[in-house]
Parts: sequence; structure tokens; C-alpha cells
Amino acid sequence: MPPAKKLKITALAGGVGASKLLLGLYEVMDPGLLTIIVNTGDDIALHGLKISPDLDIVTYTLAGVVDSAKGWGIRGETFHALKRLAGYGRANWFNLGDRDLATHIHRTGMLAEGKTLSQAADSIRTALRVKSRILPMSDDPIPTMIDSNEGSLHFQEYLVKRRTEPVVRGIRFAGAESARPAPGVLEAIRDADRVIICPSNPLISIGPILAVPGIREQLRTHKEKVFAVCPIVGGKSLKGPSDKMLVQLGLKPAALGVAKLYADFTSIFVIDPADKSQSAAISALGMKVVILPTVMKTRAQKRKLARALLSLSPSSAL
Amino acid sequence: MPPAKKLKITALAGGVGASKLLLGLYEVMDPGLLTIIVNTGDDIALHGLKISPDLDIVTYTLAGVVDSAKGWGIRGETFHALKRLAGYGRANWFNLGDRDLATHIHRTGMLAEGKTLSQAADSIRTALRVKSRILPMSDDPIPTMIDSNEGSLHFQEYLVKRRTEPVVRGIRFAGAESARPAPGVLEAIRDADRVIICPSNPLISIGPILAVPGIREQLRTHKEKVFAVCPIVGGKSLKGPSDKMLVQLGLKPAALGVAKLYADFTSIFVIDPADKSQSAAISALGMKVVILPTVMKTRAQKRKLARALLSLSPSSAL
Repeated sequence: MPPAKKLKITALAGGVGASKLLLGLYEVMDPGLLTIIVNTGDDIALHGLKISPDLDIVTYTLAGVVDSAKGWGIRGETFHALKRLAGYGRANWFNLGDRDLATHIHRTGMLAEGKTLSQAADSIRTALRVKSRILPMSDDPIPTMIDSNEGSLHFQEYLVKRRTEPVVRGIRFAGAESARPAPGVLEAIRDADRVIICPSNPLISIGPILAVPGIREQLRTHKEKVFAVCPIVGGKSLKGPSDKMLVQLGLKPAALGVAKLYADFTSIFVIDPADKSQSAAISALGMKVVILPTVMKTRAQKRKLARALLSLSPSSAL
Repeated sequence: MPPAKKLKITALAGGVGASKLLLGLYEVMDPGLLTIIVNTGDDIALHGLKISPDLDIVTYTLAGVVDSAKGWGIRGETFHALKRLAGYGRANWFNLGDRDLATHIHRTGMLAEGKTLSQAADSIRTALRVKSRILPMSDDPIPTMIDSNEGSLHFQEYLVKRRTEPVVRGIRFAGAESARPAPGVLEAIRDADRVIICPSNPLISIGPILAVPGIREQLRTHKEKVFAVCPIVGGKSLKGPSDKMLVQLGLKPAALGVAKLYADFTSIFVIDPADKSQSAAISALGMKVVILPTVMKTRAQKRKLARALLSLSPSSAL
């Protein structure tokens, strides 16, 4: 086994929650050995522009340009274009900063020119000098649709426009059946020394990635090296509406609830000390439980969790 | 005949040069009686965005938001998105401000949603509270192509990217044969009390409008009410590369040269006192010559020329 710093890591990631851990990993390992497979179920077309929120959050975070107070968007951003768009009667519930718009225009332009989402993502991360590979889960559109008491909503409409107020009755990944993993995704899982499931929403960040045919199977095949970091601590989401959505779907907003969703492809399940009491029940699912502080408010906490994860070997356990 | 202030005016216009006179007209007449038919030969798609420079210059000018020092773009504009686009390796020779981008995104969005360029132009001028109708010459794309010693260039490449340095050998309005005037264009010429040809480049601002099948014929039919303001004064363009282009195409960079291009559909040809000596030769083309100061540097000069034009009757002459 190579030393911890030389491990090849592949991470599955959503947006804001994942980016905390990714930043830690990026800073404590050789970032050239890190590959990130990102949820694109949140992608949406607005005003004809193709917007990939999670790809951009991950890229901006690792590029060091993210607005770290919000966790998304660009630091010091202005919103002159958005204000005018509203003046033209266009929807302005989705925040689009002036600098951020360039990313969407560039991506939309590349797609119009016949390039793939993967190629656009690589162009953007390269231009922003991010040293890790950033792969969309798929080059095919797989919009996450929320079936709710207000009808079927695109995930961004549910999250941003309706501020998670509708009651969730179901989640669909439209078109997933016929989608393919983006080039390099299955290989990145196969070739990694460790696969880390970031502390992202299991339903609408990791869930869409798992719904792409072939990815869940590949994780199962390589289960011994798959570690998951639980995004629920003390019954609450580390970030976003995971807890509420779990409850509305009849699942437990608890580490154990997430563990059940991941048990078929995960060998080590990392929980926070706050959830120590669930260790036995999680172990009973066939996973090893590792207890580590997973709340990452500071840069030091991000690095610390990253280092701890890199030091785990498949045989590590409570 | 209605009083001068109640005349229905239809103007044919390019961008910056025309907008000076249009602003004068807008301020001295009932702007609701003004219809402007605008050149769209300069339109270009960049990064997937549909850009209509002359429509925007006219609209921004009449809305009072134009950067009046430059004559185009929006006052107090920022260029954060453009800088990032350049960072992504995108062409940045065409200036796109952050606020201005909203116009292009909105127009591109409307076209993608199945609307016409006319509908987009009307949406934009209405949102910016411009009281005059602004019509594109056509809803069909008719790109102005410059045949030069550097090959065939889109007009914006010739003008902006190559800064008018290539030697012009010919001008083509690609697709004009099969284009149709935008809805309302022929009617606006028919129903006006006066049609004013603004002091725009006769080759690449007014020329494209005249190339749309039906427009030149309609002007000829209504020749008695068509007045043209000469854009060349003392052998120089009031604005832009008209003089140089005329010479390279073997035409005279003089009022007389422009007069020859317009003689078949114009009854009154307005020249500056500087070109008084050409009056007889222009008259010999069958037009009446009216001498008025046509250099418009100040708001007062714009209003003064506008008032003088409105006071002309088809029988006015030197």
C-alpha cells in the first residue's frame, strides 16, 4: 500500500457539504491523485444557460474563489446582470453572479459547439487551476425531480425557488435508466486506493450518482475500499434539507438511516461522536464503524478529518 | 398635414451615428409617433449569445442608459463576466458588459423559446421604457460579410476584432435574397408622414436595410416623403469607417457619393454647410438639397437638427 499521502482517492460529491471535506483532502494530499465524481442531478437550464451547481461549487471551492460564507458562488461577486434580467421579466430566484455567469456561458457555449459536459467541466477546472480531476457523474441530463404536495418540481425549484417548503413524497432521477456514467467514472472507482462518499445529502446528492447505471454496481464490486462519511450528525443535516427529506420519505433522520442506504457498497461508515450510540446498529448492517469528528466549521477541522480518513485502512474499525 | 410635433416619423438607422439624431427626435417630438427600423446586419452570435449591436445602441440611447462617451454599451458598466470568459479561453475582442450581457441572455432566451427578434427587441425597449417602436429590419439573419484582402470576415470581425484594418473589396448581405422585412416595417414606411434616413454608414448600416427585399421598393413608392441626412461631412465620416470603405470600394467619400446611393428613393438630401459646393451636383440627381448643420456633438445640436428636419415639408429646398 502506498503511504497515506500517495493514495489515489476517488470521492463522490454533492455541493456545499462535500466541498468542506474535499478542501481538506485537497490540502493534505497530492491533489493530482484526487478524482471527484460530482452529482449533476441539480443541473438546470435557465435563460438558455446550462447551470451545474454542484460542479461549480466543487470547482470554485478547490480553486479558492468560492464565497466561503455562503459555500457557493464567487467571493466578492456582483449581480448587475441578474438585476437587469429581472428587469426584463426573467426569473431571478436562482442567484447568478456576473463572474459566475461567465462559467455558465462558457459551458453552454462548449455544449452548443458539440463538446460534452465532462469536457466543459475539465475546461473550467483547468482554467481555474484546480489540480484534481472533476468528473460529472454523467454527460447525459438526469434532472432530479421532487414529487411533492405542490406537484412535480425540478430540484432547484424545490430547493431555491420554494425554499424546501413543499412536502416531499418521492424523488425521481429523470432519464437515469438510459444514462451512462461519464468517461472515466467507472475507472476512477476501480483504480482508486480509496473511494470516499462525501458527507452529502444521501437522497439528492449521492442518490443521483448511485442511480446512474453501473456506478452502484462498481462500488459494490470494490466495496472493501469504499468509506462513507455520514452527513447526519445528532439527527440533523450537516448542511441542507437531508433531515427533513428523510422524515418526509418515512426514513429516520439519523446516521443509521443513511447507513442503511449505503450498506450494500460501503465497508467503513464514519460517524460523529454524537452518534456513538448507533454504532452497534450500524455494525449490524455489515459495515465497520469509525468514529471521527465530522463537523467541519474551520479549515483545521476539514484538514483533520481528511487526514484521519486517509490514515484509515480497510481493516480500521471502532 | 399635422403640425410638426404630431408628424408620424419612421427612421432608418444604424447604431451610434443614427442614435444622435434619434435622441434629438425623441426629445422634440411625441416619441410614441416615432418608429425606428434598425440594421441587424451587424448581429453576431458569440459564446452562443445572440448580439444585436445596433438594436441595443438605439434602445440604450433612447432609454437614457447608454455610455454616452462611447456611444454604445451601458453607462457605469462593469466587465467581470468578460474577464472570466477570457480566462476560459473565450474570445474577448467583443466588449460585453455585465448589464449588457443580461440583454443578450434575455434575447437569446426568447429566441430559444420560439419568439422572434422583433418580439425580443420590443420586450427590451418596453422593459427599458422606450416609448418609440424599435423594429429590426428583418427577423431573418442577414449577416454583413466583408470581402477583404484577409478573406471573408463577419462585419464585427472587420470592425471590432480587426479594427477596420483589412482592405475592403466587397460587401455582402448573406441571405438577404430570401429574407423578409420584419412585421410592421413596410407599413411603418407607408404610414409615416416622413421617412428619415439617419446619418449612418450608407454601406453597412443603411445598405443592409435596403437589401431586404421589399424595403427599397417601398421607399421608392413613397419617395416624396423620404429625407436623408448625409453621414459624410467635408469628406469625412461623422462616425465610423464610412469614408475609408467608400474609397476602398472606388466610391467618393463625399456627400455626392452618398447622394448617388440614395437618389432613387430620396426626395430631400440634407447636407452640412461644409458641403455646400456639392449642392448643384446633388440636385442634378433629382433630389432637393437642404443645408443644415449636421455635426451633432451636443444635445442642443441633436435637438436643433431634429427640429429642423421636422419643419421641412416635401417641397422644402435650398
